[in-house]
Order: sequence, then structure tokens, then C-alpha cells
Amino acid sequence: MTTAIRSEFDLGIALTGHPEEAGRYEAELGAGWQIGGGVNGGLLLAVAGHALSLEHGQHPDPVSISGYYLSASTPGPATVRTEVLRTGRGLSTGTASLSQDGVERLRVVASHGDLGTVDGEVRTSATPPQLPPPDQCIGVEHAPKELIEQAALLERFDLRLDPATVGWALGQPSGQGRIQGWFRLADGREPDPLLLLLVADALPPVTFDLGLPGWAPTVELTVHLRAKPAPGWLRVVHSTRNLAGGYFEEDAEVWDSAGRLVAQSRQLARAPRPA
Amino acid sequence: MTTAIRSEFDLGIALTGHPEEAGRYEAELGAGWQIGGGVNGGLLLAVAGHALSLEHGQHPDPVSISGYYLSASTPGPATVRTEVLRTGRGLSTGTASLSQDGVERLRVVASHGDLGTVDGEVRTSATPPQLPPPDQCIGVEHAPKELIEQAALLERFDLRLDPATVGWALGQPSGQGRIQGWFRLADGREPDPLLLLLVADALPPVTFDLGLPGWAPTVELTVHLRAKPAPGWLRVVHSTRNLAGGYFEEDAEVWDSAGRLVAQSRQLARAPRPA
Repeated sequence: MTTAIRSEFDLGIALTGHPEEAGRYEAELGAGWQIGGGVNGGLLLAVAGHALSLEHGQHPDPVSISGYYLSASTPGPATVRTEVLRTGRGLSTGTASLSQDGVERLRVVASHGDLGTVDGEVRTSATPPQLPPPDQCIGVEHAPKELIEQAALLERFDLRLDPATVGWALGQPSGQGRIQGWFRLADGREPDPLLLLLVADALPPVTFDLGLPGWAPTVELTVHLRAKPAPGWLRVVHSTRNLAGGYFEEDAEVWDSAGRLVAQSRQLARAPRPA
Repeated sequence: MTTAIRSEFDLGIALTGHPEEAGRYEAELGAGWQIGGGVNGGLLLAVAGHALSLEHGQHPDPVSISGYYLSASTPGPATVRTEVLRTGRGLSTGTASLSQDGVERLRVVASHGDLGTVDGEVRTSATPPQLPPPDQCIGVEHAPKELIEQAALLERFDLRLDPATVGWALGQPSGQGRIQGWFRLADGREPDPLLLLLVADALPPVTFDLGLPGWAPTVELTVHLRAKPAPGWLRVVHSTRNLAGGYFEEDAEVWDSAGRLVAQSRQLARAPRPA
């Protein structure tokens, strides 16, 4: 390591290659990334995506990454084993398995590319969320105490939620299934593709806005990335349209400071039991 | 086999267990499922999902399934190798690898459950598409000849597209990025969860409606299933909001005849080059 100061996120996804086993990496899941009973699923996806970045070399950026969550992870050591399935011209595809003490936590399949060289054409009909400026939004210091106590990772975020979508914090969920706000890391680290994997799972569960305040464990999370994000604030929208069959989908859009829709994600999560 | 008549779809996803290798199945990819240069990606996903259904036993239905497409498949024999990662109370998760002549075509991770026993609560804010009745929609017999010639599978579909979203067939794409219509199988086989995996990839690429008539190979396709579909016509909506970075997302919603949103899918596909 030659860098004198590294951000909490870079430390959180840091990997050490195994001296004898190709494709194997060791990680240390920090207690500061906990949420509810485990380590944040977006951080785990970034750890796995990072391992595949290292494997693929000329294709460092996740373009599409899918993770299936098998068991709750805990702070402490973790092992990531990767397998390269295909090395293509524009995309390379591989799998990553993150485990702790021999128990698999997360299985990932992903295609990586180089977002620095992508086609410039953009035909986006989606529009960025209309948000009050960050200083008129709601910081996590106003979040319910029970939420903060269960979410160590909130201290690492500078998260400012749109007042129009935080009625749930005052016992008045809108029922629309939408939470949106501004996001940046508290230590000032600028966004990059791996950070977007964390951001896709960084807001409170959108079911809070449906009046379901409980825990919503992720079954599956897929993130698609379209561009390297510009420095500065990100805008994030979480929404759901279909709570049914005991599960709900949570869609996230991440917009960068240049007004580009840089990432789209969808996860399937288990619906909290009604209070 | 005791059933005298099997549908084309059931034949298309039929599997034979390997006598000596646990978790291995043999399939025969039918020429009738071709589209463009290969076998339809939804059919391949259904073959892989079927293999995992057989492995999981008490969890026969895909609830979330993600496929990464590695190379174009061709009609003929294929081998599916499965691995069970976790057997849980409500969901079981596994991987499936579909290959031909030792070349991997598709890698899948999926969580299966039993959609016959799911929680009855439904909070769906999504609304079904408003479509003219099937007999006022556009059958594939009106599709451009070049399209039909490249899409043998269209003969197996009874697909009726909303006239409002087929301007592209007359050289007048709307630019909205939306194609919708009615779907059922031509031979009358009723829908079930495995068929929904095909349906999620059954309509023409939504980029046709953006004025991009070319081939749009799938990178990744994830389907979430929420209920067993009722018999009868399905309504399908394909849409996209973000063509950027050389790729576009294609979201599909599948509604059953009882008005339930039974499946949601998203795929990332390579954007066709502008004509």
C-alpha cells in the first residue's frame, strides 16, 4: 500500500490475493457496515464485484452483476473465490462466492467491462428525481433512534432524504412505495462503479413507505451500470410497485451530478410481516 | 411418460437425468425455438430453471432466476449441470450451467420455492396495460417477412400486439420504448411458472420501438415470479427507459387473466447499432 489515506469504503472492499490459490481473495467485513442483523448486502456485492475486477484486468468495471444472498454475514474475515467463465472483447463474465468459516453468504455472477470506453450514445427517457437541495433534505440525525442503532453504516453515509418521502419516520407512510434522496460518503470519497453497488442498497427499505417497518432480507440483487459517475452528490430513488407472494421488488435508480442515470438496480426482498 | 400428448413447450424443456452423474441433465434444443442467430434466451432460461425444479423437489417453482448468456446456442443436444447451494424452508438456491459440446452457453443462479403456498397479501400499485381485445390486435402474420424468417419460434406463439405499439413494423417507431400485447402458446398449453420465463423474453426487442431494428443480444436476464398464473391469455408489456453506454434495459411485466402481476423481469441487452 502506497496510499497514505484510504477511505472507509476502500478499506471495506479491500482484498488480499491468496498466495497459492488462483482466483481466491481474503476480505475483512467491517463492523461499521452492519445493518439490522448482518453486513449490508450492497457492500458484500461490492466486495465480490471487486474480486472479479481484479480477475478480469482489462475489464475492471461491473456492467451487470447479480447476487443471491444465502445466509446472513457477520463482521470478520471472509473468503471470495472467483471463476472466470468467459473473457470477451467487450465484456468478461465470471462468478464469485463469498463465504465465512466455510458457509457461503453470497453467490454472484457478473459481466465486467470498461465503462471508460463505452459508446457515447444516450437515449434516456427516464427523468431524474426532483429533490429539494441537500440542505433542505432530512439527514439521518433525524432518523428514529431504533433505526440508527441497528444501522452502523448510516454513520458512513451523508444521506439526505427528500422530506416528501420520509413520512414513515413520523408514523405517516405515504403508501406510494417510494423513498428518494441525496447520497455521498461521509468521508468525501468520490463515487466510482464499485461504490454504485453499495448505493443501490443504501437507502432504508422502500417498504417503510408502505407502513411495513420490519426487516426485509434481500433474496437477489442485480445492478446494471452504464457510465462512470461524475464526482459529487448522487441522487437515488428507491421504488416498488408489486408486493405479492410474500416478496416485493425494490428498484433503484442512481443519477450522478452530471444528470446521467448511471445505475439501475432491482432486488427481490422478503416482505416484512405487517405490524 | 404416460401423457399421450405433450405440448411443444414441454418437449422444448424436457430433460433426461444422467444415469451416473448427480445433478446432470440432457436436453434437446429444438430448431423451432430459434430467433435471430440462436435459440431463444427465455427458452434456455426455462430449461435451466426446469433442471433446478427437479433438483429442489419440494421447491419446484422459480421465484427469482438470473441468467448470464455466454455464447449463442444452436439447435441440438445440450447438457445442464446443476449445483444446489442452499436448501431453506421457503426457498432453495442453486446454480445451473447449460453447455453444448463443452462450451458454456448460459450460467444461471436461482432461488426456487412453492408458488402454490405463498402468502396471499397483495399490495400492487402497478396497473395492467390497457389493450384492445386480442381480435383487434396485430398477429404475427402481419409482421415483416424478414422478422418471421429469422424467428421460427413465432409460429409457436399466439402473439397479438397492441396496434398502438407496432408503428415500428410500418417504419414509424413511436420512440417511447414500449411494446405490449397478448400472449398464449399456439398449441393451447396453459401458462405455468416455467412458461413465464419464456414469456419474459418472447416479444420483439423493445428497441424496435426506438427505431433500432437490429439484433439485441441479451447479456443478463432476471425474472421474479409472484404467483402461479391463471389459465388463459397473458398480457405482456416490454419497456425501456435508458439506452446508454452501449446497452439498454428491457423490463417486462406479465399479467395473467385474473389481473395479477405474476412476473416481472429485467434484462440488460446490447444496443443495436443505429441503422
